[in-house]
Amino acid sequence: MDLKEILKERGVPIENALEEYLSVRRPKKLYDAMGHIPLAGGKRLRPIMAVLMCEIVGGDPERAIPYATSLETIHNFTLVHDDVMDDDDLRHGVDACHVVYGLPTAINAGDALFAYAFEMITDTEVSSDVKNSLIRHVARTVREIAEGQQMDMDFEDMTHVSSEEYLKMIELKTAILFGAAAYGGALIGGMEEKRANKLRDMAISIGLGFQIWDDYLDATASEELLGKPSGSDIVQGKRTLLVIKALEKTDEENGRRLQEILDKQNNDDKEIVEAVEIMKECGALDECKEIALEHLENAKKTLSDYSDTEARKDLEELLRFMVERKY
Amino acid sequence: MDLKEILKERGVPIENALEEYLSVRRPKKLYDAMGHIPLAGGKRLRPIMAVLMCEIVGGDPERAIPYATSLETIHNFTLVHDDVMDDDDLRHGVDACHVVYGLPTAINAGDALFAYAFEMITDTEVSSDVKNSLIRHVARTVREIAEGQQMDMDFEDMTHVSSEEYLKMIELKTAILFGAAAYGGALIGGMEEKRANKLRDMAISIGLGFQIWDDYLDATASEELLGKPSGSDIVQGKRTLLVIKALEKTDEENGRRLQEILDKQNNDDKEIVEAVEIMKECGALDECKEIALEHLENAKKTLSDYSDTEARKDLEELLRFMVERKY
Repeated sequence: MDLKEILKERGVPIENALEEYLSVRRPKKLYDAMGHIPLAGGKRLRPIMAVLMCEIVGGDPERAIPYATSLETIHNFTLVHDDVMDDDDLRHGVDACHVVYGLPTAINAGDALFAYAFEMITDTEVSSDVKNSLIRHVARTVREIAEGQQMDMDFEDMTHVSSEEYLKMIELKTAILFGAAAYGGALIGGMEEKRANKLRDMAISIGLGFQIWDDYLDATASEELLGKPSGSDIVQGKRTLLVIKALEKTDEENGRRLQEILDKQNNDDKEIVEAVEIMKECGALDECKEIALEHLENAKKTLSDYSDTEARKDLEELLRFMVERKY
Repeated sequence: MDLKEILKERGVPIENALEEYLSVRRPKKLYDAMGHIPLAGGKRLRPIMAVLMCEIVGGDPERAIPYATSLETIHNFTLVHDDVMDDDDLRHGVDACHVVYGLPTAINAGDALFAYAFEMITDTEVSSDVKNSLIRHVARTVREIAEGQQMDMDFEDMTHVSSEEYLKMIELKTAILFGAAAYGGALIGGMEEKRANKLRDMAISIGLGFQIWDDYLDATASEELLGKPSGSDIVQGKRTLLVIKALEKTDEENGRRLQEILDKQNNDDKEIVEAVEIMKECGALDECKEIALEHLENAKKTLSDYSDTEARKDLEELLRFMVERKY
């Protein structure tokens, strides 16, 4: 199967569970707001990873559905709150939750989604011991996601951010939720804690590759493929690994010029091209690509310990998509 | 012991646990913001209720500390987010979290507190089965608190709110967290589910009495005793049970006048006195007082089934304070 088919087929039980959990109840406005972003679509990468991992370690993938759905719910709760914090108006091609329902209801809907996610975990048909490990892991993960979000916000007021700081930030903000998908899926599939943690490391690696590839794509993919203007990170002046590496590697003059373009509002296409050229010339673009691909290779190596089932093939396809996608 | 001594003595382990859990880590700004409201004080009614309940049913109160602390943390997370949603600048006599740290960090700190609360529950030394019951109950409770908050916000756009709707709102927004304190404390103390649920009902009753008494006090207590201008609900045009009852009971002319005072911004003292007079004359003030005291009586009846220990005496004192306090 190609990736599109995998996502479609594996996504069905997740979509069904999401729709059932998020069916509209009273107060109607709250439940409408809760469903707005989660039911607007998305690739469901995290829940699909959890379900596949459960199957790969020999478990019944059905059993991982409530947990997988809880991770998608948590992902969406962070999107709803992040859009408020970052004052972003669009998400997945639809208006952000606070744009449609107002800021107070968006905050409240995020809180309710978050609480709901923990109810979903307790719906998992596993022993109480395993359930407790899942709860503890997810609670800690969400606290650390908040740490990552804080680092990201704090970066905006800092004049210099190191690669290490940036990598720590994306690990917390993005990668560890993939880690929770792999860890929990494996535990539900019957794997013991220690080995589940190795799969968690693998997923964190992929999560890092996923984010770094995203930064790389933003500077290289064309608008047609990406569905958003290429170079949007540059226009927004975002500090990505690519920018950090370029500022480290390039000479003083180009560094000053790159900073100038990043600091300027409303860059035109010529400036974007110029910035990408600086990133390319100093080798930052290639380095970021290599780092992302290295993460993919590491992850594939971990997976190769498991028997060559349909689920493993699907997961490999998913990992490849996460780090090598063209759009 | 009088109430002040009870709160002080019983509050010590809660304060210690809060301080330990909320010790500042990195990112510093996040943990500073997380500690801002929880460590600014408060009566710790919910955690003390949980600990006392554990002791009353024959359990070791020490064991209830992490759970009790998690409820105080959840209470504070809702305060931080509510202040953003309601645009309130003051809380417990200090600047609201978003006033000190900005809106994005306040939202993020609330999320992190919420996640942390679930970690705290998993620190409880009870069987995994009991832990799961606690998690499920608290997660559901927080989702229902969000429903209550939504009802409260929705009321602002409604021309008529019934007593039933108001009571449902305060049950969800305020009372069920007391319910969770009693239920969880009892479970941790070794009580079976069904009897723990009866204690939950008792605590919900007290939570309702607490809120209704609060509405009553606001119209009757003097500024000196209350620490805030008496009649602040009237100035803010808030729809309390007192207002709803008064509008139901009084004649057309007084009803119109009361509505006029409530709708007006910046009422002077004369208008506040006039509004309170209307509420008094039609019997609404007395009715609210009676309803609150009835809740207290019901709760005391439930407690009388338990042996007459120090803990029961302390809890009775606490309940009396919640519903009969003068300030």
